[in-house]
Amino acid sequence: ALGAFPLGDGCTLFRVWAPRAREVALLIEEDARPPIPLAHEGDGYFSSVVSGVGPGARYRYRLDHGAAFPDPASRFQPLGVHGPSQVVDQGCYQWHDGEWRGMPLERYIIYELHVGAFTPQGTFDAVISRLDYLAELGVTALELMPVAQFPGERNWGYDGTFPFAPQNSYGGPEGLKRLVDACHGRGMAVILDVVYNHLGPEGNYLHPYGPYFTDRYRTPWGDAVNFDGPDSDPVRHYVISSALQWVVDYHLDALRLDAIHGIFDFGARHILGELACELHRRQEALGRPVYLIAESDLNDTRVILPPERGGHGLDAQWNDDFHHALTAFLTGERSGYYADFGSFGQLVKAFEQGFVLSGGYSVFRRRRHGSSSADCPPSRLVVFSQNHDQVGNRMAGDRPHERLDPARLRLAAAAVLLSPCLPLIFMGEEYADPAPFPYFISHGDPGLVAAVREGRRREFASFMHQGEMPDPQDETTFRSARLDLGLHRVGEHGRLFAFYRELIRLRKELLPVSRFRDGEMALAADEGRQILSIV
Amino acid sequence: ALGAFPLGDGCTLFRVWAPRAREVALLIEEDARPPIPLAHEGDGYFSSVVSGVGPGARYRYRLDHGAAFPDPASRFQPLGVHGPSQVVDQGCYQWHDGEWRGMPLERYIIYELHVGAFTPQGTFDAVISRLDYLAELGVTALELMPVAQFPGERNWGYDGTFPFAPQNSYGGPEGLKRLVDACHGRGMAVILDVVYNHLGPEGNYLHPYGPYFTDRYRTPWGDAVNFDGPDSDPVRHYVISSALQWVVDYHLDALRLDAIHGIFDFGARHILGELACELHRRQEALGRPVYLIAESDLNDTRVILPPERGGHGLDAQWNDDFHHALTAFLTGERSGYYADFGSFGQLVKAFEQGFVLSGGYSVFRRRRHGSSSADCPPSRLVVFSQNHDQVGNRMAGDRPHERLDPARLRLAAAAVLLSPCLPLIFMGEEYADPAPFPYFISHGDPGLVAAVREGRRREFASFMHQGEMPDPQDETTFRSARLDLGLHRVGEHGRLFAFYRELIRLRKELLPVSRFRDGEMALAADEGRQILSIV
Repeated sequence: ALGAFPLGDGCTLFRVWAPRAREVALLIEEDARPPIPLAHEGDGYFSSVVSGVGPGARYRYRLDHGAAFPDPASRFQPLGVHGPSQVVDQGCYQWHDGEWRGMPLERYIIYELHVGAFTPQGTFDAVISRLDYLAELGVTALELMPVAQFPGERNWGYDGTFPFAPQNSYGGPEGLKRLVDACHGRGMAVILDVVYNHLGPEGNYLHPYGPYFTDRYRTPWGDAVNFDGPDSDPVRHYVISSALQWVVDYHLDALRLDAIHGIFDFGARHILGELACELHRRQEALGRPVYLIAESDLNDTRVILPPERGGHGLDAQWNDDFHHALTAFLTGERSGYYADFGSFGQLVKAFEQGFVLSGGYSVFRRRRHGSSSADCPPSRLVVFSQNHDQVGNRMAGDRPHERLDPARLRLAAAAVLLSPCLPLIFMGEEYADPAPFPYFISHGDPGLVAAVREGRRREFASFMHQGEMPDPQDETTFRSARLDLGLHRVGEHGRLFAFYRELIRLRKELLPVSRFRDGEMALAADEGRQILSIV
Repeated sequence: ALGAFPLGDGCTLFRVWAPRAREVALLIEEDARPPIPLAHEGDGYFSSVVSGVGPGARYRYRLDHGAAFPDPASRFQPLGVHGPSQVVDQGCYQWHDGEWRGMPLERYIIYELHVGAFTPQGTFDAVISRLDYLAELGVTALELMPVAQFPGERNWGYDGTFPFAPQNSYGGPEGLKRLVDACHGRGMAVILDVVYNHLGPEGNYLHPYGPYFTDRYRTPWGDAVNFDGPDSDPVRHYVISSALQWVVDYHLDALRLDAIHGIFDFGARHILGELACELHRRQEALGRPVYLIAESDLNDTRVILPPERGGHGLDAQWNDDFHHALTAFLTGERSGYYADFGSFGQLVKAFEQGFVLSGGYSVFRRRRHGSSSADCPPSRLVVFSQNHDQVGNRMAGDRPHERLDPARLRLAAAAVLLSPCLPLIFMGEEYADPAPFPYFISHGDPGLVAAVREGRRREFASFMHQGEMPDPQDETTFRSARLDLGLHRVGEHGRLFAFYRELIRLRKELLPVSRFRDGEMALAADEGRQILSIV
């Protein structure tokens, strides 16, 4: 256990791993006491039960009589990443989902949303007010883009630095609990996107505490997390504890692990295998299934193979190939990673086998890529025609409806929603919301802002002729991403929405996931006429 | 195919992968012709059949009208790493081992030797002259420390930069063939130590040719080899071709893969799995088994598990834990990696299960380490009480007989040679040769020499009170490592030699590897009296 745990009698247990410190003292705000030294347990762990401190108290840790920092395992950062941590009583929320027993993964129809941009208010509670809408659409699982505390109020979420703390500007711990509770009340599962491959650059106070990071491996986003070097056991524990907290304290049904190709672990027991094992063995006690879904660009079935076959034992993984095959086929795009895609046969392969790049040469990667997923049940692959990355990592964040005519948009929707895999919709695609989803941040460090701007400009240098790149730091960029859900009843938007609703209804009726597996349904591809039929 | 291939009619095919060059021209020494441009095949490969060039011709490649470099796939560097490459006709050697069908791995009793230090001459041919001695000892397999061309004449071998070229000062291609042939003539297998985790710092001319290396991962010895980045397919092909050449052209029976924990590959198909697959499928055509034996400090059974269980499918791996458990128990040493060892129970575990560190906490590594090898047949683990690293990576390269009394020395020998695993002896240990095995080099670059000296000094800083560290570059350091095989008949040396010979005879009679597996033999450990019996 790491963090602050109120014990209910006016005392709180504080426990932190700080092997780089010889002494750790607790500084409590608005408390007349001098800094309270924590006892050294050994192995770099410090802890003490402190009286007169309860939920709501704000604190920092002072390391070796020097500077004081927020708690790496902070449950709440009420004033943001640079402020103090706050003691949270995870037991005080009154849950109403006692009847909830989770949902089989095969029934997941996923709706990915960004809490900040989904509603004008940008809060967990405001999402609750839209659950009627989502129920009308018919999706069965919400997937929240990362909510771990990030710097400022506007961020995709992948710059989080407190992997246990729901974003303050979204509504903090109570807000997230209310949202999950409300979803469960409507029979909807909730997936949380969690980032364990790096921590954000601003508000990252972990370095003075201990070797959370390593320079042995590089990630595109910052220092790799130390999963296999000296003193990595407590780092692994930190990450596993974070994952467990989301599932246990916040009742989340599944975690979407961001970019596991940035999780480097050469040890004999891979952190992902250990994480899966630790989460899955909680299922019985929780009385519901808990799923781990990886985002991976490795096209490696070991991610989802069971341990006895040498796999990590995760439950599912994203299949970008489906997206790329579908998009390249429908739009004719061939730049970047689309260079490997475009044929009708690849689309058929994506339906039939999952990975399109299954060991052959990739022009984009300039090497052979992937393994075959022909043996993997389709219910273990998540597919989509849009997601935050595929929309947002275009220079302007423009959506497919700007490039596809209505017929092709519908074709894409049907391909995803009737596929034997798990479908994912990105917020707004169901009625072609005109809002783009550009990259946005609200860092406090001007140097960092400049670096992000420069990085994005470099990334999109060859697209600059298409117009000016939105400034990630500018609030209007963020505002442009906000949906206008009201449009879903208007004109062509409304017709598309009705089409999505009908596809989802049909999916629930047909249950393609299990029917494909049982051989009741099959694909028939007519290469010449480019017709893919489900029979 | 990469390299120069004489076609027998006065023509030679030259083929090189040089994606960083737009033009490649062949420069032949003592040839009046101007540089001969090679044709670009595409994908960075250049090749041409050139007439008037045969075996023995010396050549370089000129890249883009600039500097000329030796061939990365050179079969021979007659003048060393900085000189030209030489065309070799691999078919001209007259082999005498047509009857050789290899040897089952279980019968390997391995003798590790350094070609340069084993005899006063330091050549392959001089090793042949000692095969009578080795036959008398009774070992069944020679393991040669790396012979791929390294800078200078004195080197452990791990600084090689031409993975296809046997060291010129050892006798080059013909010399190695004569040695392997002679071994086979005596029923002895030959293992070659090959280094695919990095290439040496001096005489490494690969950079101008192509992206052989990557900065995504770090090794302690230099840039990691690019096994999973852009353009890694040809790099993988280069390494696999090297391994195949040793087996096919040099008739080697097994390869010992140096430090595979420095081989980084996050792709869906690990280079080691591909290498094993490529080598093993040659076995039928070769009419003999081919083994891959890994040095690994990962304690990870995936190295030797079959592909269907998620493993790389190698045949065996070194088990350092056996050495550490044995040494710590017998000597009482507890510094460095011995911190995790010392108990009798660990020695028993090393016998019974293989890995001692099988997932528990390692004090030395400051994290949990390893997986259990209890399920692995003992014949897939190589054990030793000495090897080049365990002797040589002490400050003075001093051997165990300087710290152990004769009884303990014999105990160590018996533990190794009667173990259910594959035993390995390090040259000279069988008669306690007084020669140390210190680290030695003969680099031509003074800056590099200074860096190596400094690195070794730093490594052994805490041992400096034990005396002066031998200078790696000084020739006397190398000379001190030379064995005096004549001693094996003298006094206590002779008695120890007779004991080793008897143990080896006994091992051949008892065949502990298969008997342990079949349950015919078993271990009985008396913890109280610290007696380990084989019954």
